[in-house]
Amino acid sequence: MKIVAYFVIFLGCVSGIAMAEIPISNATKECVDCHSSFHPGIVEDWKNSRHTLFSPGTSMKNKGAARKISAVSVPNNLANTAVGCAECHTLNAESHADTFNHNGYKVHVVVTPKDCSTCHTEESAQFEQNLMSRAYGNLASNNVYQDLQRGVLGEMVRKDNKILYYPPNESTAGESCYYCHGTKIEVKGLQKRETLVGTMEFPKLSGWPNGGVGRINPDGSKGSCSACHTRHSFSIEMARKPHTCKECHTGPDVPSYKVYSASKHGTIYDTMNSEWDFRTVPWTIGKDFAAPTCAACHVSLLTNPEGDVVAKRTHRMNDRLSWRIFGLFYAHPRPKSPDTSIIRNKDGLPLPTDFDGGFASEFLITENEQKARAQTMQAICLSCHAKAWVDGHRQRYENTIRQSNASIAVATGMMNDIWKKGFAKGIRQGESMFDEAIERKWCDTWLFYGNTIRFASAMSGGGDYGVFADGRYQLTQSIAEMQDWLNLRLQLFSGREAVNDNGKFKMQSAK
Amino acid sequence: MKIVAYFVIFLGCVSGIAMAEIPISNATKECVDCHSSFHPGIVEDWKNSRHTLFSPGTSMKNKGAARKISAVSVPNNLANTAVGCAECHTLNAESHADTFNHNGYKVHVVVTPKDCSTCHTEESAQFEQNLMSRAYGNLASNNVYQDLQRGVLGEMVRKDNKILYYPPNESTAGESCYYCHGTKIEVKGLQKRETLVGTMEFPKLSGWPNGGVGRINPDGSKGSCSACHTRHSFSIEMARKPHTCKECHTGPDVPSYKVYSASKHGTIYDTMNSEWDFRTVPWTIGKDFAAPTCAACHVSLLTNPEGDVVAKRTHRMNDRLSWRIFGLFYAHPRPKSPDTSIIRNKDGLPLPTDFDGGFASEFLITENEQKARAQTMQAICLSCHAKAWVDGHRQRYENTIRQSNASIAVATGMMNDIWKKGFAKGIRQGESMFDEAIERKWCDTWLFYGNTIRFASAMSGGGDYGVFADGRYQLTQSIAEMQDWLNLRLQLFSGREAVNDNGKFKMQSAK
Amino acid sequence: MKIVAYFVIFLGCVSGIAMAEIPISNATKECVDCHSSFHPGIVEDWKNSRHTLFSPGTSMKNKGAARKISAVSVPNNLANTAVGCAECHTLNAESHADTFNHNGYKVHVVVTPKDCSTCHTEESAQFEQNLMSRAYGNLASNNVYQDLQRGVLGEMVRKDNKILYYPPNESTAGESCYYCHGTKIEVKGLQKRETLVGTMEFPKLSGWPNGGVGRINPDGSKGSCSACHTRHSFSIEMARKPHTCKECHTGPDVPSYKVYSASKHGTIYDTMNSEWDFRTVPWTIGKDFAAPTCAACHVSLLTNPEGDVVAKRTHRMNDRLSWRIFGLFYAHPRPKSPDTSIIRNKDGLPLPTDFDGGFASEFLITENEQKARAQTMQAICLSCHAKAWVDGHRQRYENTIRQSNASIAVATGMMNDIWKKGFAKGIRQGESMFDEAIERKWCDTWLFYGNTIRFASAMSGGGDYGVFADGRYQLTQSIAEMQDWLNLRLQLFSGREAVNDNGKFKMQSAK
Repeated sequence: MKIVAYFVIFLGCVSGIAMAEIPISNATKECVDCHSSFHPGIVEDWKNSRHTLFSPGTSMKNKGAARKISAVSVPNNLANTAVGCAECHTLNAESHADTFNHNGYKVHVVVTPKDCSTCHTEESAQFEQNLMSRAYGNLASNNVYQDLQRGVLGEMVRKDNKILYYPPNESTAGESCYYCHGTKIEVKGLQKRETLVGTMEFPKLSGWPNGGVGRINPDGSKGSCSACHTRHSFSIEMARKPHTCKECHTGPDVPSYKVYSASKHGTIYDTMNSEWDFRTVPWTIGKDFAAPTCAACHVSLLTNPEGDVVAKRTHRMNDRLSWRIFGLFYAHPRPKSPDTSIIRNKDGLPLPTDFDGGFASEFLITENEQKARAQTMQAICLSCHAKAWVDGHRQRYENTIRQSNASIAVATGMMNDIWKKGFAKGIRQGESMFDEAIERKWCDTWLFYGNTIRFASAMSGGGDYGVFADGRYQLTQSIAEMQDWLNLRLQLFSGREAVNDNGKFKMQSAK
Repeated sequence: MKIVAYFVIFLGCVSGIAMAEIPISNATKECVDCHSSFHPGIVEDWKNSRHTLFSPGTSMKNKGAARKISAVSVPNNLANTAVGCAECHTLNAESHADTFNHNGYKVHVVVTPKDCSTCHTEESAQFEQNLMSRAYGNLASNNVYQDLQRGVLGEMVRKDNKILYYPPNESTAGESCYYCHGTKIEVKGLQKRETLVGTMEFPKLSGWPNGGVGRINPDGSKGSCSACHTRHSFSIEMARKPHTCKECHTGPDVPSYKVYSASKHGTIYDTMNSEWDFRTVPWTIGKDFAAPTCAACHVSLLTNPEGDVVAKRTHRMNDRLSWRIFGLFYAHPRPKSPDTSIIRNKDGLPLPTDFDGGFASEFLITENEQKARAQTMQAICLSCHAKAWVDGHRQRYENTIRQSNASIAVATGMMNDIWKKGFAKGIRQGESMFDEAIERKWCDTWLFYGNTIRFASAMSGGGDYGVFADGRYQLTQSIAEMQDWLNLRLQLFSGREAVNDNGKFKMQSAK
Repeated sequence: MKIVAYFVIFLGCVSGIAMAEIPISNATKECVDCHSSFHPGIVEDWKNSRHTLFSPGTSMKNKGAARKISAVSVPNNLANTAVGCAECHTLNAESHADTFNHNGYKVHVVVTPKDCSTCHTEESAQFEQNLMSRAYGNLASNNVYQDLQRGVLGEMVRKDNKILYYPPNESTAGESCYYCHGTKIEVKGLQKRETLVGTMEFPKLSGWPNGGVGRINPDGSKGSCSACHTRHSFSIEMARKPHTCKECHTGPDVPSYKVYSASKHGTIYDTMNSEWDFRTVPWTIGKDFAAPTCAACHVSLLTNPEGDVVAKRTHRMNDRLSWRIFGLFYAHPRPKSPDTSIIRNKDGLPLPTDFDGGFASEFLITENEQKARAQTMQAICLSCHAKAWVDGHRQRYENTIRQSNASIAVATGMMNDIWKKGFAKGIRQGESMFDEAIERKWCDTWLFYGNTIRFASAMSGGGDYGVFADGRYQLTQSIAEMQDWLNLRLQLFSGREAVNDNGKFKMQSAK
């Protein structure tokens, strides 16, 4: 390899642009020298990536919407070579706690949004304001979520016919909630390891491996670009196809992928996508694709065939979203700040609504802002649908927000009664509100069914996920089961006094 | 656009037929003039469709099985231009309540099977006799279904520790059951709207948007061709691929797509379909495709490589089906009429069986007709499977019909006991039979598990959906849970008298 | 056909090898003569298969890793013609109980691994030692599984408010558990049938049709190659794509496919696989594919781009597996023998662990062997991931094995208490331990949730299937529901004496 000055890559000619020879930096050549045999998978991925096709300097020559680099300028030392191993893994070495000496280079393990921002400045800045980049703290610093987390992931012990939950260990946390939310990656010293080329020293990382979207990185930055632009091809095609989103959005708590794949849009995608172009920038409605993917509605720069911008690119998904429809008791206007741990409802809990469904409005966007965002989204809808269609869709969605919230209020009211009557112990008694069977039945109503109904409304305008597949059938069934459970206890234990309830909420402290 | 007399479309050469220039009507040209910029997605879809490749007149010259137009003749004014916007949206203007004046044209919003029948006469006629085209009325005019609908979709209010259900509003209905079944679309006057080209007037439609298969259209016709032949490409490829069917057939109530995708047929499809041809007519077994999709077994015109017809095209799916295996307590022979709201069982309820499983035979096809239809289907199976294989498969399916019905009879017998003993109030007490927890547990047995078992038997000959994935495991579990529930109440309340049960069924009136 | 001496097949040129004319045997020509018109689907499949492209003799000339035939030599009479109908269906005629006279040939219906071993010797031998090839006996000869089987598939009768389960009939068994596990195929005489070419006689087979992986064949051999190499194309592409595995690995009991398709690997596959090569042998990491499929990790011969072997091909999946993570109460080291019906735990039950989670170690592989197998697997991981990543992944997986087992121990301890206290009757009372509602709730914990958590850990390192999609949420919920159920009974019936429990296990005899 070392005697080859230029590393020529022959690939299918992307977008009709003739391939030129692109120089590879000497540093990257050294990396590839060993790693192409040690880790051929990622090296081949990179070889197939756009990062080997165009140097940043060449890409900068692209003007207008087709340009993929948003930096005003790129550093001279990066401008004229391919974006290779060394370019990213030695960038900003000094700010990386995970930097280590590796064959004479200061290499860091974890490439971060801050590193990527060197070329992709605007996207990184937007992503920093994206709620997803705060997914670690939004979970770890919210004591209501921590209560749920302990009840779900905690180490379980049964003693005297009682089940106790101790906080989950780091390994369990790292491969459950924080797999998607992102872990906190910290350097815990160095460790020696025998390798095929002798003894070497590497940093010991806690919370590793992780590719979560809200990862806390060793350089202090938040998030991971490779959550969607999977390493080491970092492909726009990957981020634009819906499978990528499925990784974290497929369970009953966030059933977006499932709902999409059964929607008209998703079925068109599955039928026809092999004929579409997922690599052109900008992405032209009708010409490049015939039905939206997740990215089309939430992220991508879209134009019509005449070149007019239909939607500006954004990596701050909030820009096109008016309601937050999952993960909490009630649907509510989007939070103002990406940091949701700062929210307090009227009871002082870190929740965007109170138990009755009232909004913690000072932390949430206004109705006007909601309307503006809805219009940003609807501009996309209108590219294929007439105004009456789009308005009808929106009107039903707003109705579903109200109706599903009303049903959840019935369930939550019943849960409150159960706590009041002392049939279960929850937040009113200073105990966990997520560790008893009846409390979990209540969770099901808002964590799985209320939100699935809303996703079905928002993304497909209805269908099975609104009714029989974690939808209204299961929502009403769970509420009927809560009623059945309560009725039996009222019949059997009606004389019993409610204990330890003064009507106040007492949250357990977060672990 | 206006100065271009001919609108030439270059596309991949479909089926090896050389493309000719096809004239676009002046009316359509006017549509495209504005809408290609306002709604580029649908205009591009149409440009990529067969409707722009061949005029009806050209298509009529196709003789034999390859011909896609079934009309004996097409109107002269439509014969020699592409099938464009104006051709469909101004057709039969006088019979459309949704016709409105639009730039000098009488345009209607909703294109219907009656419009499509101009060229696709036979398919429209068959579809009219297809149970699916009656999906709206079959749900809305059946008071047992209306009882279930209110319990699932209804607006819920909790009062005095009781949950009351009020009928769902139109928006909720339109994006749940009626999303697939189809809404009733009615014109509610006209409304003015500011557009980019000035103030315009459009009809106000109730039940809009909707693409449901049994939609009631403003011209009085039933159904929507675009439910499967998605607008505006109306592609046979789309209708032949299974994703299209998934839109309405994926929940636990009708798990056909899920069962298919885990079947040997579905796994072959997912593995190999990129090499198949989904556009040729007729569709040749082995040559064009190597495993059936939904359409192959239920709809398509199939031939063997020698050109012999294996199955005639039908848009009346009943033609190849002997049993109705979902949506009702018991599997039963297919109804004679596509209008199932006329069925009455021996108790006078609009159900094809009574509570014990006895058939309402006068409304159902005969055993001989069942055998004939089974043979029509088996002709397709025999194209890849030997007679013994096909017979063995059928024998197991018939066994599963019997066995699953027997299990449901156990669950229903228990439910009857529960009503008789007064532990729940249902049809015997003139109350809803779908709004209490134990009633829903019973629903699960036939609405989700009995049918999933039958789909697994019919479509894949077994596998997970017959056992652990909404199959026999869940069926027996639900029945054990009903027994557990009943046993506890018998232990606790055995002295209690059953109230208000004279053994008669008293149905609530439909809302 | 008969006058055509050579049957030339034109296909896409696979792997750049020029097609030669391959002779078809006279016997096969006779088969094709009729069957191409009677069963065109399978004949076309075969025509598109590699079996028509190369004769065994030609294939033998391939040297090294690219060779697909593992036999030292192939019989002379098979060497120089395509591998056609007659070659397989008349092979080893004398050892096949299903051999019958068919137009002068001794044909057998069921082609078996023993037949395939003629050319694919090593693969057949490995598969014989693969646990999957014993799937029939491992289920049918294990009386604990037979107890579960009767409770799930059994014919249900309700008598005196009790539900009784009679063993399932052969048809039910054949299309449920044994669809995947494989049936026992036995010849039950001959039957005459009218065919298009006159009266013919065919063997009557019990357990037919079946393509289960552990089928008992009429020649005494075990398993079915076509379970994964689907007839009659027997394609390596099919076996390498994950959809094939989905057929049997998609339910909550073995959710491998679902977990895969939501994993980073699976989402890369779904996004990019149309650009990969699924036919080359050996299969080169990075070059032929960029993310592993099921086969890549569990079966395939993998090399790096320099041609070094990363993993040897194996059809004994155990080779790369250290833990058995599903289908039984607890995760445990892989069994030593593929025949698991010989295992006995300390209570004498055919289970690899006792009820407390202790291993039946004498029947299971050692910790050292576990480590060796883990390393075999990790060699594949290391092709794309650094050592720290792979080690971190493994460490979490081992943690999840321990933690999930600990949670199941809590559930099982509670179940034991319930049996002891007489609130349910199970193995301690000589009754079924799988037929009561509370017993099924316990089953859910280990049969669905414990294993899903482990699959999520093993295959994707976390995500929804570890938490909200049949994961830790549902596991803790089920345990809370067991507790709730037990608490109510303790409150209501605490004075009651436990009956008929001397602390010994009494298993029902297998049916």
